[in-house]
Amino acid sequence: MKNMAPTEERVGIVVCAAYAEGRRIGDITLDEIPYALQREDSFVWLGLYEPDEALLAEVQARFGLHDLAVEDAHKAHQRPKMEIYGDSLFVVLRTARWDESAETAVYGETHVFVGRNYLVSVRHGASQTYRPARLGCERQPQLLAHGPSFALYTLMDFVVDNYFPVLSDYEDRLDDLETDIFAGGADRDSTQEIYELKRELVTFRRAVLPLIDVCTDLISLRVTHVPDAVRPYFRDVLDHLKRINDTLDTMREMLATVLQVSLALASVRQNEVTKALAGWAAILAVPTVIFGLYGMNFERMPELHWPFGYPLVVGATFAACGWLYRRLRRSGWL
Amino acid sequence: MKNMAPTEERVGIVVCAAYAEGRRIGDITLDEIPYALQREDSFVWLGLYEPDEALLAEVQARFGLHDLAVEDAHKAHQRPKMEIYGDSLFVVLRTARWDESAETAVYGETHVFVGRNYLVSVRHGASQTYRPARLGCERQPQLLAHGPSFALYTLMDFVVDNYFPVLSDYEDRLDDLETDIFAGGADRDSTQEIYELKRELVTFRRAVLPLIDVCTDLISLRVTHVPDAVRPYFRDVLDHLKRINDTLDTMREMLATVLQVSLALASVRQNEVTKALAGWAAILAVPTVIFGLYGMNFERMPELHWPFGYPLVVGATFAACGWLYRRLRRSGWL
Amino acid sequence: MKNMAPTEERVGIVVCAAYAEGRRIGDITLDEIPYALQREDSFVWLGLYEPDEALLAEVQARFGLHDLAVEDAHKAHQRPKMEIYGDSLFVVLRTARWDESAETAVYGETHVFVGRNYLVSVRHGASQTYRPARLGCERQPQLLAHGPSFALYTLMDFVVDNYFPVLSDYEDRLDDLETDIFAGGADRDSTQEIYELKRELVTFRRAVLPLIDVCTDLISLRVTHVPDAVRPYFRDVLDHLKRINDTLDTMREMLATVLQVSLALASVRQNEVTKALAGWAAILAVPTVIFGLYGMNFERMPELHWPFGYPLVVGATFAACGWLYRRLRRSGWL
Amino acid sequence: MKNMAPTEERVGIVVCAAYAEGRRIGDITLDEIPYALQREDSFVWLGLYEPDEALLAEVQARFGLHDLAVEDAHKAHQRPKMEIYGDSLFVVLRTARWDESAETAVYGETHVFVGRNYLVSVRHGASQTYRPARLGCERQPQLLAHGPSFALYTLMDFVVDNYFPVLSDYEDRLDDLETDIFAGGADRDSTQEIYELKRELVTFRRAVLPLIDVCTDLISLRVTHVPDAVRPYFRDVLDHLKRINDTLDTMREMLATVLQVSLALASVRQNEVTKALAGWAAILAVPTVIFGLYGMNFERMPELHWPFGYPLVVGATFAACGWLYRRLRRSGWL
Amino acid sequence: MKNMAPTEERVGIVVCAAYAEGRRIGDITLDEIPYALQREDSFVWLGLYEPDEALLAEVQARFGLHDLAVEDAHKAHQRPKMEIYGDSLFVVLRTARWDESAETAVYGETHVFVGRNYLVSVRHGASQTYRPARLGCERQPQLLAHGPSFALYTLMDFVVDNYFPVLSDYEDRLDDLETDIFAGGADRDSTQEIYELKRELVTFRRAVLPLIDVCTDLISLRVTHVPDAVRPYFRDVLDHLKRINDTLDTMREMLATVLQVSLALASVRQNEVTKALAGWAAILAVPTVIFGLYGMNFERMPELHWPFGYPLVVGATFAACGWLYRRLRRSGWL
Repeated sequence: MKNMAPTEERVGIVVCAAYAEGRRIGDITLDEIPYALQREDSFVWLGLYEPDEALLAEVQARFGLHDLAVEDAHKAHQRPKMEIYGDSLFVVLRTARWDESAETAVYGETHVFVGRNYLVSVRHGASQTYRPARLGCERQPQLLAHGPSFALYTLMDFVVDNYFPVLSDYEDRLDDLETDIFAGGADRDSTQEIYELKRELVTFRRAVLPLIDVCTDLISLRVTHVPDAVRPYFRDVLDHLKRINDTLDTMREMLATVLQVSLALASVRQNEVTKALAGWAAILAVPTVIFGLYGMNFERMPELHWPFGYPLVVGATFAACGWLYRRLRRSGWL
Repeated sequence: MKNMAPTEERVGIVVCAAYAEGRRIGDITLDEIPYALQREDSFVWLGLYEPDEALLAEVQARFGLHDLAVEDAHKAHQRPKMEIYGDSLFVVLRTARWDESAETAVYGETHVFVGRNYLVSVRHGASQTYRPARLGCERQPQLLAHGPSFALYTLMDFVVDNYFPVLSDYEDRLDDLETDIFAGGADRDSTQEIYELKRELVTFRRAVLPLIDVCTDLISLRVTHVPDAVRPYFRDVLDHLKRINDTLDTMREMLATVLQVSLALASVRQNEVTKALAGWAAILAVPTVIFGLYGMNFERMPELHWPFGYPLVVGATFAACGWLYRRLRRSGWL
Repeated sequence: MKNMAPTEERVGIVVCAAYAEGRRIGDITLDEIPYALQREDSFVWLGLYEPDEALLAEVQARFGLHDLAVEDAHKAHQRPKMEIYGDSLFVVLRTARWDESAETAVYGETHVFVGRNYLVSVRHGASQTYRPARLGCERQPQLLAHGPSFALYTLMDFVVDNYFPVLSDYEDRLDDLETDIFAGGADRDSTQEIYELKRELVTFRRAVLPLIDVCTDLISLRVTHVPDAVRPYFRDVLDHLKRINDTLDTMREMLATVLQVSLALASVRQNEVTKALAGWAAILAVPTVIFGLYGMNFERMPELHWPFGYPLVVGATFAACGWLYRRLRRSGWL
Repeated sequence: MKNMAPTEERVGIVVCAAYAEGRRIGDITLDEIPYALQREDSFVWLGLYEPDEALLAEVQARFGLHDLAVEDAHKAHQRPKMEIYGDSLFVVLRTARWDESAETAVYGETHVFVGRNYLVSVRHGASQTYRPARLGCERQPQLLAHGPSFALYTLMDFVVDNYFPVLSDYEDRLDDLETDIFAGGADRDSTQEIYELKRELVTFRRAVLPLIDVCTDLISLRVTHVPDAVRPYFRDVLDHLKRINDTLDTMREMLATVLQVSLALASVRQNEVTKALAGWAAILAVPTVIFGLYGMNFERMPELHWPFGYPLVVGATFAACGWLYRRLRRSGWL
Repeated sequence: MKNMAPTEERVGIVVCAAYAEGRRIGDITLDEIPYALQREDSFVWLGLYEPDEALLAEVQARFGLHDLAVEDAHKAHQRPKMEIYGDSLFVVLRTARWDESAETAVYGETHVFVGRNYLVSVRHGASQTYRPARLGCERQPQLLAHGPSFALYTLMDFVVDNYFPVLSDYEDRLDDLETDIFAGGADRDSTQEIYELKRELVTFRRAVLPLIDVCTDLISLRVTHVPDAVRPYFRDVLDHLKRINDTLDTMREMLATVLQVSLALASVRQNEVTKALAGWAAILAVPTVIFGLYGMNFERMPELHWPFGYPLVVGATFAACGWLYRRLRRSGWL
C-alpha cells in the first residue's frame, strides 16, 4: 500500500485516501479499500458528492453500511441527527450558505458514516467542498492520529463555522427592519419583511437546533466511538452551536416584539391621522358656519348692510381659524 | 398445515395467514389458529375491518387478548398509544387520508395486537387497506423472519408514509394563504381560512404526536417484544414522525405569525383609508369654503361685481384643489 | 357476620357493607366494622355523604385514618391529589356535573380512603351518588375480589366518565361561538362569551389535570397498594383523562385563536365601515360642491340665466353621483 | 433549669424558651442557652425581631450558625429558600399581609435556623408576630415532642395560612375588574388596573413559588433533619401552596385574557362609534344637499315659486331623515 | 521563594503572586511560576488584561492549559460557561458595567483557569479591575487557605455584585416608562423605548442566565475541584444570580404587558378621539343645517320676513348647540 495508484477518476468520488498515524499515506481506489481497512493503525477517508445508486451500493458493500442509513443518504431531505449502528456512527448535517444574489440562505446536506477505521462523507446540494477542512485536518497529524472521529469533528466544525456568516446576514436584515420601522413606521413592506425573516429564521433554526443534540450525544460517555481526547473538540462545536442558538433565540424574540411594536406604531399613527382629520375639520367648520350664517336670506340682517361688513366678517373668520390652528397645534392635535 | 383450506369468507376478516421463516405458508381459518400458534417458528397475521362484537370476541378467545384492549378496539376513538399486556403489545394508530372533494383530511383508526407469534390488526373508518404493506413485507422474507414486530413496523411505516401527502396539502394551503394576505390584504375570508387551517392542523397533530412516544417506547430497551435487529426500523419511523412534527411546528408558528401579520396589515390598511378620507376631505373643503364665502348676502362685496369674478374664483378654487391634491399625493396621504 | 343486622339509618351514611371474595355479604353497622376488618379475606365499603364532625371522628377511630387526611375530608375545597399514609391511600377527586338550567358545570368533591381491607368514600356538594358504580362493581365479583383498590378504580372511572358530557357541552359552546363570530362578526356578547368559556375551561382543567398525576402514581410500581392485575384498569382511566386533557388543550388553543381572530375581524369590519363612510362622503361631496357653486352671488354667472340651467345642473350632479357610486362599488369601497 | 429566671428584657428578643417532651419548661436567658442545648431531650426556641448586628453575632456564637446564613439573616431581601449547613437548616420565608388602607399586600421576611435541638426565627418588616403559632404548637405537646422541625412546620403553616386572605383580596379585585370591563368597556382606568394587578400578582407569586421547592425538599428523604412523622405536615403545607399557586396561575391566565378582551372590546366600541358617526353623517347629508339645492341662484327654478314649495321641501327633507334614521337603526348602525 | 523579586513590569500582566496558607507571600515572575507550582501548600494567582498571543502562549506553557481553552481566552466573545479539562477548570464570565453617559450597560469578558494550585484570570473589554476582590480575599486568610477555588468564588462574587447596579438602572427605566405611558399615553417614543429596553434586557439576560448553570455545576458533587467548605459560597453566588434572574423575569413579563397595555391605551385614545370628532361634527351640524335652510331661495318663506326672524333663528341655533354640547359632555362623548 506504500505505492498506491492515484484515485481512479470516477464521477461522484471527490477523494478516497488512506491515513496512518494522522498522516495521509496516499490516494486509493475503491477496490483497495478492503486491504486498507484490514490495517489496524490506518483509516480510509472517502468523500462523495451526489453519488448515483450504483456507487452508493458499492460503497455500502465495501464498508458494510446499514441499509437504512444508506437509504437516508440516497434520499437526502433528512433532519440533522446521529444514529448508532453497532460500531459505526451515521451523522446527518445540514449545510448553509448565504446566496448573495437571492439574499437568502441555501441549504445542502451531508451524510457522514464513521466506523472504527473509515469516514465516508456524502454531500448533497448547495454545500461547499470539504477540501479546506480536510487540509486543515492534515496539518494537525497529532490530532488526526485519534482516527476518524477527529475527522468527523473537522467536518462538523467546518459546517458550523459556515453558519456564522448566514447568521450575521440575518442580523443585518433585522437591524435594517428595526431602523425602517422606527424611522418610517410600519407599512405593508416592513410587515411582509417581518414575516419572511421569521420564516427564514425558522428554517435556519431547524438546521441548527438538532445538531445540538447530536453534539451532546457525541460528548456523552454513552457514545463509545469517540476517544476521550477528542471529546473536548465536539464540546467546542457544541459551544458554537449554543452561541448560534442563543442569537437565534434573541432574534426570534425581538422579531416577535417588532411585530407587536409595528402594530403599536400603526395604532399611534392612526391616532395622529384621526386627530389631524378632526383638527382640520374643526378649523374648516368656522368659515362653513359663518359663511352659511350670512348666506341666509332674512330680510332684516343688519350686518349685511354695514359698509365694512364683508371684510370684517371674512377677517374675523380667518382670525378665528388662525387662533384655533395655533391652539390645536399647541395641544398636539395638528 | 401444509394443505390449508382457503380462508373462509367471513365479513370483517380481510386476511388470515400463517408465516414461517418470513414466508407466507398459506391462508388459514379462525379455527386453525390455535394449531398455528403452537408451532414455534411460525406466526399468524390476522387482518380485520370493522369486525362485529361476536367476531372480536372469538378473536380475543383464540389469541387470549386482554379485556381492556379489546374494549378499546371495539369502541375506536382512542388516542394513539401503546400498551403492554404481559408478553403482548397493543398499539393504537390514527390513519389519515386526504379527501380531495372535501379538501380536508379524514381520519381512521387501526388497533394492532402483537404477540410472540401473531399480529392482529383491526381497521376502523377511512383508512386504506394494508395490502400493499403486507405485500411489501412478503417481498423481504429475511426481515419478516424477525416475526410479528417487523410486521408491526411495516404497518406503522405505511400509516406514517400516508401522513406526508396530507402534510403537503396543508403546506399548500398555508402558501396560498400567505400569497392571498400579502397580495390582497387580510379580509374576512382569509381570517376564517387561518382559523380553519389552525383547527385542522391541531387535529392532525393530535394524530401524529402521540405516535412519537409510541415509537420511542418501541425502541427503548424496556420493551423486550422487539428484537434488536428490528429496532433500527422503528427508529426510522420515529425519524419520519419527527420530520412531520418539525413541519407541523413550523406551520403552527407561521400560522400564528400570519394571524398577527394580518392584524398588522389591517391596521396599515386602516391608516391608508383614513388618510385618504382626510385627504379628500381637505381637498373638498376648498370649494366648500370659497363657494360659501361668495354665497354670503353682504351688500358690498366688490368681487361679486367684477365682470370676471365668477370664472376667476372658480378657476382659483380648482387650481387650489389641484395643488393640494399634488401635495397630498406626494406626501403619501392619497 | 353471616346474619348481619341492616345498616343503622344514620344521617351521612349512604352505605356500609362487607364484601368477601368479590361478593357483597351484607350491610353492617359502624360498630361491626372492627370485627369485619379482622377477617383476612373480606373488606368493608363505607360510603358517606357530607358527614358531620362527630361521624367523621368515629369513622377515623374505626379505621385508624390519619389526622391530616380527615381534616382535608372535613374541609373540602382540596385539589385532586393522592397521599400515602403508611399502608393506606387518601385520594381526593373533583366530580363534575352539567347543570342544564345554569348552562354551566357544577363541581363536587369526593375523598376516598383506601386501606388493605376497607374503602371509605366521603362525598361533598354537587356529585352524583356512586350507587351505579357500586352495583357495576358487584356485577364483576372476579375483579372485585382484587379488593378495595378495584373499588377505587370503579369510583374513579365513574367520576371520569361523568366528565365527558361536561366536555361535550363545552365543545358545543365553542362551536356556537365560532359560528357566531364568522357569521356575524365579533361583538360585545361574543367577546364576553369567549371570556366566560375560557374561565370555565380553566376551572374544569383544574379538576381534571391533577388526576393525571394521581393515576400515573397509582400505576407506578412505587405504589404497592395496587395489585398488578388492577394496574391496567387505572391505566385505562389515565387514558380517558389524557383524551379529556387533549381535548381541553385543543379547546384552549382554539379559544385563544378565536380571541385573536375576533380582533382581526373587528379590524376588517372597521376598515369596511371607514371605507363606506369615506365612499358616501365622496358621493355627497359632489352635490355639496356644485350646489354651493351656484349658490354664489356673482353678478355675472351665465349658467344661472340659461333656460334649462337648473335641470341641467341637477341632472349632471346626479349623474356624477351615480357614476361615482358605481365606481366605488366596483372597487370595493361600498 | 427548673427555676429559670424570666427572660431578660432585651430589644430584639421576642421569646427565648426551653421545651422538653413537647412542653414549655420555661423562659431562659441567652446565657443559659449553652446549658439548655446540652440536654438531650429538650430544645430551645428563640424568636427575634429585627435584631441589631451585636445581638445576631451573639446568637450566632451561641448556636454555631454559619457565616453566610447569618449574613443573609441580617441583610434581608432574600428570596424564599432552604439551605442545609451540615446538621442545621436555614429557611427564608416571605410573609404577606393585606394592608387595608393601601389596598395592597405588604411583605415581610422571616429567617429560620433549625438545628437538632434549637429553632431561631428572625422576623423583618411587615409580618405578624408568631405568638399564635407558638401557642397553637404548645397545645399539641405530643406533636411538638418531635422537636424543632415540628416548630418549623407551625411557623411555615402560619405564614402560608396568612397568604389566603391576600389571595382572596386579589381575586376580588380581578372580579371587580371583569365586571367593570364587561359593563362599561375598557377605559384608561381599567387598563391601568390590569397592569397594576398584574404587577402585584407577579410580586406575590415570587413570594409563594419558591416555597414549593422548599417544602418539596423538606419532604424528600434527602433531608434527614425532618423525622418521618413530621413529613406529612410539610406535605400539607405543600398542598396549600399548590392550591395558592393554582389560583395564581388561573388569575394570571385570566388577567392576560382580560387584557386581550379589553382590546377586543375597544375595537368593538370603535366600530360602534365609527358606525354612529357614519350614520349621523348620512342623515345630515339629506338636509345639507337639499337645502344647498334650493340655495342655488338659477333664474328658472319652478319649485321656488310654488306657493307651498317651502313647507313641502322642508317636510320632505325631514321625512327622508326620519326614514333613514329608522333604517339605520334597524340595521344596527345607530 | 521568601525573598521574591518584584513582578516584572510586563504589558498584560496585572498581578502575579504566590499564596501559602491563605496569605500572600509575595509577587513572582513568570519564570518563577514552575517552582511555585511545585510547592504543595501554596498557589499562584496570575491576573492578565487583554494579553497578546505571545504572553498567552507562555502562560499556557507554564500552567499546561488546554489548547481549546486558550483559544477561547484569546478570541473572547464566548458565552458564560464552565469546562472541565482533566484536573483544571475553565470558566468564562461576562462582566457588566453601567455606562452613565450612554445610559446603557457595557459588557466585558473574563476567562478564568483554575488548577490544583493556580488561578489565571484573563480580562477583556469594559470590566473593572479585580483588585478590590483580591484584596478582600487576602483579608480572609482562613478562607483563602482553601485554595484557588475560593479565589474563583471571590471573582465570581465580584462580577455578580456588579450586576446589581445595572439591574437597578434598568428597573428605573422600566418605572419611568410605566409612568410615561399611564400619564401621557403610548406614543412613538415610548414604543421605541419599550423595544430598546427589551433588547437590552435580552442581552443582559444572556450574560446572567448561563452563569446559573455554571454555579449549579460548581456546587454539584460531580465537580471535585471545589472543596466541601467552599461549596456554600458558590451556593451564595447562585442565590444572587437567582434573584437577578427573578427580577429579569419579572421585568420581561411586565415589559410584554406594557407593550400590550400601550396598545390597549392607544385603542382607548383612538375611541376618545373618534368620539370627540363625532361629537363636534354633531354640534356643527346644527348651524349648518339651519343656516342652509334659510339660505334657500323660496319665494314664500314667512320666517324671512319676520322682524326678529334673524336674531331668533341665530339664537335658537346657538341654544341648540349649547344643549347638545352639555348632553354629549355628560354622556362622555366630549
